[in-house]
Amino acid sequence: MRGNFGEHFRLSIFGESHGPGIGIVIDGIPAGTPIDEAEIAQYMARRAPGKDPTATARQEGDQVEILSGVLEGRACGTPVCGLIRNTGMHSGDYRQLVGRMRPGHADYAGWVKYGGYNDPRGGGHFSGRLTAPLVFAGSIARAILREMGITIASHIERIGPVHDPSFAVHPDSALLTRLAASSFPLIDPSVEPAMRRHVEEAKAALDSVGGCVECVALGVPAGIGSPFFGSVESVFSTLAFSVPAVKAVEFGDGTAIADLMGSQANDAMTFDHGHVTCLTNHNGGVTGGITNGMPVLVRVTIKPTPSIARPQQTVDVSTGQDTRLEIHGRHDPCIVPRAAVVIESILAITLLELSMDDAATKPNHP
Amino acid sequence: MRGNFGEHFRLSIFGESHGPGIGIVIDGIPAGTPIDEAEIAQYMARRAPGKDPTATARQEGDQVEILSGVLEGRACGTPVCGLIRNTGMHSGDYRQLVGRMRPGHADYAGWVKYGGYNDPRGGGHFSGRLTAPLVFAGSIARAILREMGITIASHIERIGPVHDPSFAVHPDSALLTRLAASSFPLIDPSVEPAMRRHVEEAKAALDSVGGCVECVALGVPAGIGSPFFGSVESVFSTLAFSVPAVKAVEFGDGTAIADLMGSQANDAMTFDHGHVTCLTNHNGGVTGGITNGMPVLVRVTIKPTPSIARPQQTVDVSTGQDTRLEIHGRHDPCIVPRAAVVIESILAITLLELSMDDAATKPNHP
Amino acid sequence: MRGNFGEHFRLSIFGESHGPGIGIVIDGIPAGTPIDEAEIAQYMARRAPGKDPTATARQEGDQVEILSGVLEGRACGTPVCGLIRNTGMHSGDYRQLVGRMRPGHADYAGWVKYGGYNDPRGGGHFSGRLTAPLVFAGSIARAILREMGITIASHIERIGPVHDPSFAVHPDSALLTRLAASSFPLIDPSVEPAMRRHVEEAKAALDSVGGCVECVALGVPAGIGSPFFGSVESVFSTLAFSVPAVKAVEFGDGTAIADLMGSQANDAMTFDHGHVTCLTNHNGGVTGGITNGMPVLVRVTIKPTPSIARPQQTVDVSTGQDTRLEIHGRHDPCIVPRAAVVIESILAITLLELSMDDAATKPNHP
Amino acid sequence: MRGNFGEHFRLSIFGESHGPGIGIVIDGIPAGTPIDEAEIAQYMARRAPGKDPTATARQEGDQVEILSGVLEGRACGTPVCGLIRNTGMHSGDYRQLVGRMRPGHADYAGWVKYGGYNDPRGGGHFSGRLTAPLVFAGSIARAILREMGITIASHIERIGPVHDPSFAVHPDSALLTRLAASSFPLIDPSVEPAMRRHVEEAKAALDSVGGCVECVALGVPAGIGSPFFGSVESVFSTLAFSVPAVKAVEFGDGTAIADLMGSQANDAMTFDHGHVTCLTNHNGGVTGGITNGMPVLVRVTIKPTPSIARPQQTVDVSTGQDTRLEIHGRHDPCIVPRAAVVIESILAITLLELSMDDAATKPNHP
Repeated sequence: MRGNFGEHFRLSIFGESHGPGIGIVIDGIPAGTPIDEAEIAQYMARRAPGKDPTATARQEGDQVEILSGVLEGRACGTPVCGLIRNTGMHSGDYRQLVGRMRPGHADYAGWVKYGGYNDPRGGGHFSGRLTAPLVFAGSIARAILREMGITIASHIERIGPVHDPSFAVHPDSALLTRLAASSFPLIDPSVEPAMRRHVEEAKAALDSVGGCVECVALGVPAGIGSPFFGSVESVFSTLAFSVPAVKAVEFGDGTAIADLMGSQANDAMTFDHGHVTCLTNHNGGVTGGITNGMPVLVRVTIKPTPSIARPQQTVDVSTGQDTRLEIHGRHDPCIVPRAAVVIESILAITLLELSMDDAATKPNHP
Repeated sequence: MRGNFGEHFRLSIFGESHGPGIGIVIDGIPAGTPIDEAEIAQYMARRAPGKDPTATARQEGDQVEILSGVLEGRACGTPVCGLIRNTGMHSGDYRQLVGRMRPGHADYAGWVKYGGYNDPRGGGHFSGRLTAPLVFAGSIARAILREMGITIASHIERIGPVHDPSFAVHPDSALLTRLAASSFPLIDPSVEPAMRRHVEEAKAALDSVGGCVECVALGVPAGIGSPFFGSVESVFSTLAFSVPAVKAVEFGDGTAIADLMGSQANDAMTFDHGHVTCLTNHNGGVTGGITNGMPVLVRVTIKPTPSIARPQQTVDVSTGQDTRLEIHGRHDPCIVPRAAVVIESILAITLLELSMDDAATKPNHP
Repeated sequence: MRGNFGEHFRLSIFGESHGPGIGIVIDGIPAGTPIDEAEIAQYMARRAPGKDPTATARQEGDQVEILSGVLEGRACGTPVCGLIRNTGMHSGDYRQLVGRMRPGHADYAGWVKYGGYNDPRGGGHFSGRLTAPLVFAGSIARAILREMGITIASHIERIGPVHDPSFAVHPDSALLTRLAASSFPLIDPSVEPAMRRHVEEAKAALDSVGGCVECVALGVPAGIGSPFFGSVESVFSTLAFSVPAVKAVEFGDGTAIADLMGSQANDAMTFDHGHVTCLTNHNGGVTGGITNGMPVLVRVTIKPTPSIARPQQTVDVSTGQDTRLEIHGRHDPCIVPRAAVVIESILAITLLELSMDDAATKPNHP
Repeated sequence: MRGNFGEHFRLSIFGESHGPGIGIVIDGIPAGTPIDEAEIAQYMARRAPGKDPTATARQEGDQVEILSGVLEGRACGTPVCGLIRNTGMHSGDYRQLVGRMRPGHADYAGWVKYGGYNDPRGGGHFSGRLTAPLVFAGSIARAILREMGITIASHIERIGPVHDPSFAVHPDSALLTRLAASSFPLIDPSVEPAMRRHVEEAKAALDSVGGCVECVALGVPAGIGSPFFGSVESVFSTLAFSVPAVKAVEFGDGTAIADLMGSQANDAMTFDHGHVTCLTNHNGGVTGGITNGMPVLVRVTIKPTPSIARPQQTVDVSTGQDTRLEIHGRHDPCIVPRAAVVIESILAITLLELSMDDAATKPNHP
């Protein structure tokens, strides 16, 4: 667990927000897989700050240097290390904070766990910046999945009280293409002004807001995942709950499934041109931890950005006294739009890991 | 992943509902740990069917035979295998189902994954019965945690539309003692009649209902868990999404945290008699994937029991035709009450696994 | 590591020599794999005691009860638990030993590790009896490998000073068939009398002898294994050094390769009917941790049975005094013949695990 | 396995000999551990080429840039990534080789495994250069072990036919200090001329030689390691067989233990000033996979360097024809002296990993 993910598509993440750099080692990329750095850069750009009015003004390059495992544009089959150097850090913004624990942040939990030795600058290893390596890994996973006929997209299901309608039972692939190209993906673009207004109002109030990202994968074959400890939901949620600020993970109807009777929640099945399909998707494409051939539908709730300029009550562990704190510097009043590509990336990693696991135990291999 | 959980308190689960037996191998129990079979039996009884009007009429002993790793009432430090023989099986109840995929069940997903070779009787390896070994493992984990000052309890937060109030920011230990002794645990016992009525109405309608279990752990020290892939939420949700019928996992306010502003969601911190604590617990005792010293609060949503007697539309993969299906036999119209001890068990396993992980990397060991 | 092996063909072993039983959970057997209990029994019989004059007089049934994961003679794809009940135990033989640490045994190491809580009867979890579950797992692995064209056999390369000649560069498959049917496998049967005489002399002297098992796998395709941490040698030796009494693991020429010049140790390569092969096999079919298409050749050195009736000097940790010890009861003066099938089994497990790992990361899966 | 090692002190290695760089991610370093870059550089220098007449003339800096996990000279508790940039590469030396498989190298095995996509330059990921990251990780592990009272050293036990005497049952710590400071460590310095002469003769003959490194750890407490799959020997050999050119791993007397009777191989035990010790160490400090308090003694056999200038017969997979090959460029005629620090490093990693594993399951943690 700690620091490592996966048994087939393996990830080892490293770095601190204000250290020399952040990155990831990916082992298990099939030899010969094309590594398209231009395509990867597009995904990285969707997560990078400064691309949207809702985001911080910081300009991070998030240029990934591939240190190993790729030769002449193709994976060697050996571990790939992607490194992102840190640039434009203003540690000064954070120096004032040492000892003063930011509410809603990992400051106190980390201070206890690491005995005060962890890097506090910019959240250190806890920084949302550490999701950039996940997007890098996800970009490679998505390219492999695309060859398998699997496509992934997401939208901003809500920001505060403003909702975008959910995906249809069988989302249109054209919709997915449109969403994938947007830095503020919505199924109903008409809700964008209300969402942006809500973020602007929070920003003006020196406050922040959260929301929910809904993500779907189309073309996932039935039979991927395992009933215990390797369920689709188990693997996805392991990754999702490693993304800072995530407080809930739902599949299909999620918490709302408790509003239904069994006769409603059970997705009726039928043959459609010889293929088994369901008339509804309350289960989000997963039953018994295994994909059932329907679209895989997940929702991830992201809390309001904990860094706010409003005065907050907290403790100063250096003095042992209560204190008040105002967090200045550049912070997103809402990270939900930037989180969309992160959630898509971890769903891609999940489905690749599990399809590799499935391939390992098929009869008559190799 | 697949079939195995943990790196310190390791679990390997096995068995099918109607095979010779089900069980689990647990490796990592500290040598000398008292193994109290009477206490374990009490936890097993809370999960076993037939104990409550909401449950199936089946009478399962769920007697655990300890095959290894225990000598004269204490753990040897070697792997413990707990075996539960299957008894009172009525495979006849299920024979009619072969080929006909039960909606909401893993039948179709499993049929594809295992190429039709999996055991279909009673759900086979997908049966909710497989949660019994988790309760066995959890019972041992809870005894170890108790020595560390950690106590765990849960309540039925909702069944269908009927809610029980949530835990207070700092739940009373007397409340936890009361809940732990109940087969229908509620913070406000006055809601019990309405909940039972809802279940009875579903049963009368040959239907089923779901709900939510809310679980809390008190006395958890700050500093347990890791930011990536080994977060408290990641490890708990890996286990929770291995429990059949779970569709959502929430920490703290969960999905509702998106209704708050950052200034509300950030739990203000203060010194209380020299200890750092929070005035609220919107984050459920976990920030940055690590415990922060507040009670660890989780919610798990359980869908309505998929086995219902109502006619349902589905497919028959043996004929390639659509068909209709009525599931007879003995099934719980609501499994939420029996699930409570399962959720408590996996939270215990989570916290023990992570506290062991923490112990492994403390300086100056061993 | 501890207690668990593998990422694809996963093993969880449990049990003590004189507890209720010993066994193993195997996860990752491809669904539909035929499970031939009669064939498994033949392998189990080769390891079981009392089958050969060199072995102990104990009569162990070593009957494996399959508790899960098999239906109508085929693997379900879910975890298989194999249980071997312990019978005919004479704990009395060992009771005298408590506190008195048997030299050459794990008694003292285990007493310290487990704080005195481990089961001392018959060596407990350290008993050579725990190799029976490995043979069970290996039997299933061999059946799968056979479908892949891989066959495995071994011979007693030495007992004390008496040697059997090594395998030819390309062993004859008829030889492998003959060896696989023998309880005392030798390439040159004429050495059998000298080997048995050496064992008998040791037995008469209340002493014991060790030796070496050489094992070969034919038909292994090139390309299995990984350079770091998952090399063929790494995986095999992880298992080999889990077999009690093993003190050395060699591949190809092993320690003797230091007697060669590079020009001799480098196996010259050539095309043979369009296939790449080597003229020699000093590297034992593995280069860079990966199979190269030549027979995989391993040697495992097994120390003399530590249980001997001769008086030995040791310590009594219950008194804190030095003492003398005579170990009575029934013990093999030489376990090398019984170990042969164990080594074959772990080589089979190694090759299956690694071929599954290879299948997981092939392009265009699943 | 593949690419990853460890559950507590976790390693993820990456890089190719002639790519941008090589490195390793280490997770599990206790927070606050001093990271002494000067001390690390000393260990790195012992492995680096060009330091000894037996070694290649290449001048590699092997400067490690620490990209994460260290702040102001102490470990943060988060993953540490160490990067070594590749410099002074002469790919031209290798270009001629594409298609022509070097005997004794991983060329053919890797070409098959990776479908021809792996980086062939300088052996790519199979290069002995990849042991540099292991020395970096081992250097950190040794500093932690030193605080636990554990010291490690090794000597060149043999080069070809020339042997250095083995360690005494209880090696003198002054000897270890002397060995640790030498680039050509010998217990009996008088054998150095004969060893060097043997290497020089091989070099003059355009050939190469191998040998054996014997390594010992003093101060290792009893009780570290596990009987199955996590034995001291299993973990060490997993790492040892990941070091290029290793063909045999022995503990204690290793293969020679088959020359002894049980009464000789069983190390007699006695109380020495109240501590349990053995009069001999035929078992190399490990019984039942667990340390027994005696020095941990291992031997690793390293084959002759496969890169030799002599003409060799091999295959050209690009033409499908047999061919002859002369390998020019700068290669060590003997890598044994440089391998010593690598073996010390992996023994350190082994003992730290297992002592952390032991700490995880001690009662009453954390």
